[in-house]
Order: sequence, then C-alpha cells, then structure tokens
Amino acid sequence: MSDPFVVVGADAAGLSAASKFRREAPDREVVVFEKGRWISYAYCGMPYFIEGRVERMSDLLSLSPSEVAERGIDLRRGCEVVGVDPDAKTVAVETAEGERLEQDYDDLLVATGGRADPGPFDVRGPDGAFTLHDMDAAAAIDAYIAEPNAYDPDRADVDAVDRGRVERNAAMPAPETAAIVGGGYVGVEMAEALVGRGLDVHLFHRSGHLLSDFGEAVGERVEAELDAKGVTVRTNAPVEELVGDDRIEGIAFDAGDGPETLPVDLAVVGVGIRPNTELLDGTEIETGEGGAIRTDEYGETSLRNVYAAGDCATATHAVTGEETWVPLGLTANRAGRAVGATVAGDPSRAGDIAGTAVVKAFDMEAGRVGLIEEEAAREAGFDPVRETVTAGSRSGYYPGAAETDVTLVADRDTGRLIGGSIVGPDRAAIRIDTLATALEADMTVPEVERLDLAYAPPFSPVWDPILVAAKVLNGTLDEE
Amino acid sequence: MSDPFVVVGADAAGLSAASKFRREAPDREVVVFEKGRWISYAYCGMPYFIEGRVERMSDLLSLSPSEVAERGIDLRRGCEVVGVDPDAKTVAVETAEGERLEQDYDDLLVATGGRADPGPFDVRGPDGAFTLHDMDAAAAIDAYIAEPNAYDPDRADVDAVDRGRVERNAAMPAPETAAIVGGGYVGVEMAEALVGRGLDVHLFHRSGHLLSDFGEAVGERVEAELDAKGVTVRTNAPVEELVGDDRIEGIAFDAGDGPETLPVDLAVVGVGIRPNTELLDGTEIETGEGGAIRTDEYGETSLRNVYAAGDCATATHAVTGEETWVPLGLTANRAGRAVGATVAGDPSRAGDIAGTAVVKAFDMEAGRVGLIEEEAAREAGFDPVRETVTAGSRSGYYPGAAETDVTLVADRDTGRLIGGSIVGPDRAAIRIDTLATALEADMTVPEVERLDLAYAPPFSPVWDPILVAAKVLNGTLDEE
Repeated sequence: MSDPFVVVGADAAGLSAASKFRREAPDREVVVFEKGRWISYAYCGMPYFIEGRVERMSDLLSLSPSEVAERGIDLRRGCEVVGVDPDAKTVAVETAEGERLEQDYDDLLVATGGRADPGPFDVRGPDGAFTLHDMDAAAAIDAYIAEPNAYDPDRADVDAVDRGRVERNAAMPAPETAAIVGGGYVGVEMAEALVGRGLDVHLFHRSGHLLSDFGEAVGERVEAELDAKGVTVRTNAPVEELVGDDRIEGIAFDAGDGPETLPVDLAVVGVGIRPNTELLDGTEIETGEGGAIRTDEYGETSLRNVYAAGDCATATHAVTGEETWVPLGLTANRAGRAVGATVAGDPSRAGDIAGTAVVKAFDMEAGRVGLIEEEAAREAGFDPVRETVTAGSRSGYYPGAAETDVTLVADRDTGRLIGGSIVGPDRAAIRIDTLATALEADMTVPEVERLDLAYAPPFSPVWDPILVAAKVLNGTLDEE
Repeated sequence: MSDPFVVVGADAAGLSAASKFRREAPDREVVVFEKGRWISYAYCGMPYFIEGRVERMSDLLSLSPSEVAERGIDLRRGCEVVGVDPDAKTVAVETAEGERLEQDYDDLLVATGGRADPGPFDVRGPDGAFTLHDMDAAAAIDAYIAEPNAYDPDRADVDAVDRGRVERNAAMPAPETAAIVGGGYVGVEMAEALVGRGLDVHLFHRSGHLLSDFGEAVGERVEAELDAKGVTVRTNAPVEELVGDDRIEGIAFDAGDGPETLPVDLAVVGVGIRPNTELLDGTEIETGEGGAIRTDEYGETSLRNVYAAGDCATATHAVTGEETWVPLGLTANRAGRAVGATVAGDPSRAGDIAGTAVVKAFDMEAGRVGLIEEEAAREAGFDPVRETVTAGSRSGYYPGAAETDVTLVADRDTGRLIGGSIVGPDRAAIRIDTLATALEADMTVPEVERLDLAYAPPFSPVWDPILVAAKVLNGTLDEE
C-alpha cells in the first residue's frame, strides 16, 4: 500500500469517501482519523432517541469500528488532526494520549463536520443546559430527563458514550419544565421529543414564525400543531440569557412588552451550527458561505489534493448556481462518496443541492426546497412571485383527506420555479421531492402545472395540491 | 349569445371544458348534452362507496345540475347525441322521450368517456354479475351485497340512481362468495372493497402477475398483500365463462391443469374499458390507439372545430412523444380544461401524459409511470435496462420503516429514465410523482441519482429508495 488517502472525520462524509475509495482503489492506503470515539452516528436520529421512540443508542450507528476495519479502512479513533501542511503534504495528529505524530498524504479529505453554535448562551455552565450536536449530549439529556438513578443504562449501549457524564446527569433530579431556545427543525423535533417524555415544554423563537427557512405558511401550521399538542410557543421572543449557576433555573427573554424570566429546569439550545475548520488555520485555504471550506463541483478545495465534504464544506445551489452551505445528511453522504470516487481516479461530481429539507412535528409534516424568502430570491437575482394555496390531500370523499398548504415561488420574468414548501398532516413531507425534482430540472411553473401527477382517491385528489398551486401561481404570473 | 360551443358528455372532461369556456368567453353560448341523468361523478370513488368507506353516493358527485346551471352552462340531461355532421356543423340529438332535434355548433367537444368492456362475458345475463363503470352499477352492487331488504336507501341518495335496479338487487339473497375477473386496478380495489363487506373473495387474473401495467415487482407485493388479507388470488387463470342462468352460480376458468368451476354468488368483471365513439360513426374522423379519437396537442380532432377529451380521446406520451390512450381522471380534467380555453380563444395545450397511476391494496400502495415492460419500451425504440431494489422507507431505526421496492427502467444508449414503479406500505404511492417529474424533464439516471431528495428519519433514509435504485441502475449501465 502507498499513496495514502487521508480522511479527517469518521462520520457520514468521511466514511462514505473511505468506503467508496476502498472499493475503487484497492491498491492504495486509506487512513481515517477521528478525534473522538464516536463514528458513523445518525445525528438526525438523536431527538427520536431522547423521545424514547428509538430504544437504544446503538440503533443510531450505521457502522461499528470493526465493520469499518473489515472494509479495509485504517480507522484511528482518538486521533485529532490539528494541522495541515499542504506544501509538505502532511497532517499533524494529536492522540488522546497526548502523543503527536505526522502523517503523509497523497490526497486529503477534510470531513470534520460541524458543531452546535450556542450563540451567546453559556451551555457549558449550569447543569441541565445542553446543545444537541453530538451523541454524548443526547445521552446526557436522555439521562437527565430520567428520574434520579432510574436511568436504564442499556439505553446508551455504546462503548463510545461518556459514561461519567451520563451517570452524573442520571443522578440529578428529573426536570419538569423545559425551554427550547430556537425554533428551527432541531427545536421543533426536540419539542415533540420532550413532550413525549412528559415535560411541560416552552419553545422560544427569535423571529415571527417557526422554521424560518420553510416560509410563513409552514411556520404557522407547525406552530398551531405544537400548540395543539401542549407546547407553549413564543415567537418574537429573543432569549437573552440562561439563568442559573449550578443548575439551570430560568430563561430570561424579551416578552415584547419587557423582559421576563420563565423558571425551567431543562434548557436545550438549538440556534445554529458552525463548520469545524480549525485544523486548517494557518493554511491559505479559501472559505466561503457560513465560514465553510470552499469546494468545487468535485469537492476539491483551493489547495491542491485537499478535498472537503459534509457539514464543513460548501456546495453549489441548484437554483442559483452559486455557492451555498446547507449542512444536511444527504449532502454529506453524497459529497463524501463523490470525493472517494474522484480521488480513486473516477472524477465524480458531488451534485448540486436544492436545499431540500423535511421535518415532522407531531402529526404535522413539512418540506421545503429552493428559495422561499423574498430576500434570498432577490439576492440571487430573481424577481420572486409567490402563492400559497390550501388543497385537499385526497379526494374530498375519502376519509383522511387533510388540508395541505403548498407555497410556490417563481421568477417573474422567466416563470421558472425557484422554491416551494408543503405542509399538512397527510403524506405532505415526501411530496416535496416532486418540487425538488422540478427545481433541479429548471422547470417553469406552466411546466409544473402540466405534470402528470398521480391521482387515486386515497392518495391525491384529481388535481394534486402541487398542481393547484401551480395553476394559481400561473394565473398570477399571467395577470402581470 | 351565439356561436355555440357544444359539449357532448357531462363528466370530468365535458364539465371542465364548459366551466373553463364559460369563464373565458362569457358572451358565447355553451350547451352540454348528457345522454343519462348522471353528471360529474367520481368513477374512481366507486369501490370505496361499495366498501362502505364512503357513506353516501352523493359524496362522489362534484357538481349538481343546479350548480352547473348557476355557472351559466346550458346542461341538457337525457339528451343523447347520436350523430355529427361536420360539414353542416350540427349534431343530431335524441331525447329520453324519443324526440329528435338538431343543434348547430361552432365548436364541438366530444367528451363521451368510455364504458366497461366485458370482454367475452355476459354480464347482462344472470343476476349478481356486474361490470363497474357507472354509478348505477355501483349502486346495484352495493344493494346486492346487503342482506335482503336490509339495504339503506339513504346510501344511494342521488336522484339519478336507477331505483328500480337498486331495489331489485336489494331484495336478492346476500352473496357470500365473490369472484373478481381481472387483476387490474379496478379488480384490486374491488377485492379490498368486497373483503371490507365480509365476502369470501377470489380474484382471477389471466396473466402471471397482477396489475400488469405496474410491472412484476408491484404485482408480486400486491398479490402477497391480498393473500395476507384473505383474498384468494389466482394468476395465470383465464376465466372462460360466467356460469348461471337467472343468477350467477359459478366461474369457469382454466386452472392450468384443466378446467375448473368455482361456485360464487357475485361476479364483478373488470377486464378493460373502451372509448365511446359511436356518435361519430359515418364521419371521416380519425381514430388511433385503443380505438380512441385521435387528437392533437390542443385536443382538436382530424375534423375542424371538433375536439375530443377524456376517456374517448388519445393523448401524447411524455416519454415516447407518440400517441397513447390512458383513460384516467387527471387526463380528462386537464384536457377538458385546455379545450375550454382553446375554444374560448386562448390556445392551451392539454399536456403530455406520463402514464402515471397509483393504486391502494389494503395496506400496500403502488405507483407506476412511463414504460415498464420490455416489450413496450422496445416498441417505442428504446433498449431498456431495468433494476429493482428493495430499500427502507425511513431510517432503519425509526419505527414504521418498511420495505419499498423501486423499479427503474432506462434506455441503454442514452441513460435516459423511461419508466419506473414503486411499491410498499409506507407512503410509497405518492413517491411516484418524483419519477413522473423526472420523466417529463427527460432526466437521465445519473441526473436522478444526483437529485437532492428529502431526508428525515420519519420519512426517508439518507438515500431515498429512488436514489438507491438510480445508483444500482447506473452501476448496471456503466458495466456495459
């Protein structure tokens, strides 16, 4: 073995790349450094673990270290890459034991992911305050919610778990009132999870509607659903401070008519994530949107033979053709796989992203794609026209038909579809894939209106909600 | 009012056309002739009425005659158009009372729909034998299944119902064993409906797998589902005869190792439909696929100012660009609406059809689009390559994840996606819209593989089943 392909980070992007590379280039070495002990975990599954819907933490792991080894990948856990020398083509590695070593690379993939950005909030201070971007935090929250010492240790059945932290949290008094700071999808999913654990849940959101990226129509329906399920939603309520010294005691927030403090004994902060790029400090590497590492369509960075993929890397937006940063699971898997193939000698594009996202909030489902907000559309050079319709999810006479809101956004001049959202309780989320496909095909709204979509009473009315929305938006485009 | 627009047939296509025309050309007259008393009924809802899931027959009507009149449409029920004189631009009309009259037209739309084709079977002979393509048949089946004289007359709460036929069927002994002849989607939906009514149901299908148009992968899963729900499915079992004089007594069929007769007391024949074109006999009008009236992209026939739309008309296939005949609800509504606009002076294309269809079979859902069978693909000039994969509908750790089979068919030379199917119990059917959109955008399989489809554990795994199928099919295309 020689010409090593060195991968930094053993999650979605890193292991996809290493696995693909291993299959395509069996004669070359591949080394994966992971600073922690966790590998291959499903970040998106954490709220469902905390809710109790997923029984064991190990269910969230898609590959064990031994399975990775069986693939012929040299996985080194507890090894943090702390520096890159692109001229010498080496990385500097620090082991958990404090050793320092150097590793040559022929090709390097930075797949370091992202981490929760707690904003101005001190989540490392009081007990009972958490962010949610790693498995240790999920295990700790889960243990903290349990009655003191009633925690089932089989739940966190993974070697990598920080058992000390879990046990410390399990010993604390069980919380009764939870605040979630941030009404993005992590916040919404956590609201459902914590209600499922019997807590009194309060969700704070800085702006006027939840799930800001999904547009107003989605935000309103999801807020109504959370409300119906017992969550107290406070929009336009910026949180100012987590109150408490040893343990979280309250949430200080701007109630509109003045500051207020809500007593809570659990706080989960989900206000954003940021890319992990520190290992590249001191290099000339270019960064872009969101501070993520700038990549071309093959995932290569501005440094030769250095690639980046996943939550730490930029991607190209399918609608704007411009650089964007949307840290999501499919993007990471796909880009990792493409880099693995490219480095192995089969140049493969990572593929554009359309900004497709879906979220479940109790019995409500929502999806979004492309450019929805006026400002984002204008910035990208479009003149956005938007319509929202409410249509049935099935034939009106078929039981279970439910109101589905579809928002479509088009460019006034060209009639091109540039974004959309769907929300409703009946199979609403997965319908967003239809819009994602139309977006990536650069379809106009008249073309969308002529799509031959499925009709059968249990699944869709004759005119699918998407077709109804296209018809209405076309009417608006025609008027002008 | 003058320059009359005459429409023949008051269902999906005819009333969509008349309504659209009325709005766009308020100064012109629009007359709709309907030979029967029924208008605007949801053919696709009939199995669900018979099942009892839809409470009243009137729930299946989308417009009442008085609502049509309120729209300013001159609706004349009980008026059969029996001839067309394209030179004189007149139609000959026979009323239910036996009167004959002539009506001028400026533009004519033939929207006469289709009717059940009973094949070689005598469904008009014995009691208890039915086809299912009109509301009177649905009401009669529903009444026949009820215990003698226990029929709830509120069920068939529509003036247009043939009450004599309903009462006669309601008085007959209730059946216990039902045969369905034909395993297309009507047959499959009726199997579910009749099991729902407590009958012992036997489904006979001529060829080797149910739902022939959906491909083998779907047929097998649906057959297994019917079997699990207590339906006896007999494939490769051509029915030879309905046995019985006054009342149906049995089904004579080819059991493979010889003829056999199954005693039944209800038979529903669903072996096909044919277009209603008799009123054009004696004209030079061109017909095409399936004997349907040939139309151009605006719905105009070979006769000037004569249009056709809906189940009696051809359409253009999105994949082949060739003429096709797929009698389905959306096609009818869409083509009718386009003709209404075109005749009113705003030339509008009906839109291609992709052959999209979905069906529910108990807890199984299936969808199909484009060209699936080898022979159809070859006839259209493609060299088809096909792969079927089984993938999870959700992240494996999320409860409710279910096996979803996706079949994709591509053209070997170009890599273009030309057809596909999806089957599974968890939100499988509506996913076909993604493939329909990809087909209509002429996407290649590599393009499908790069689609940014939705991912969230409750709705889809990281790699949606469609992406998994595209990946596998690309592998096959690459090998060759």
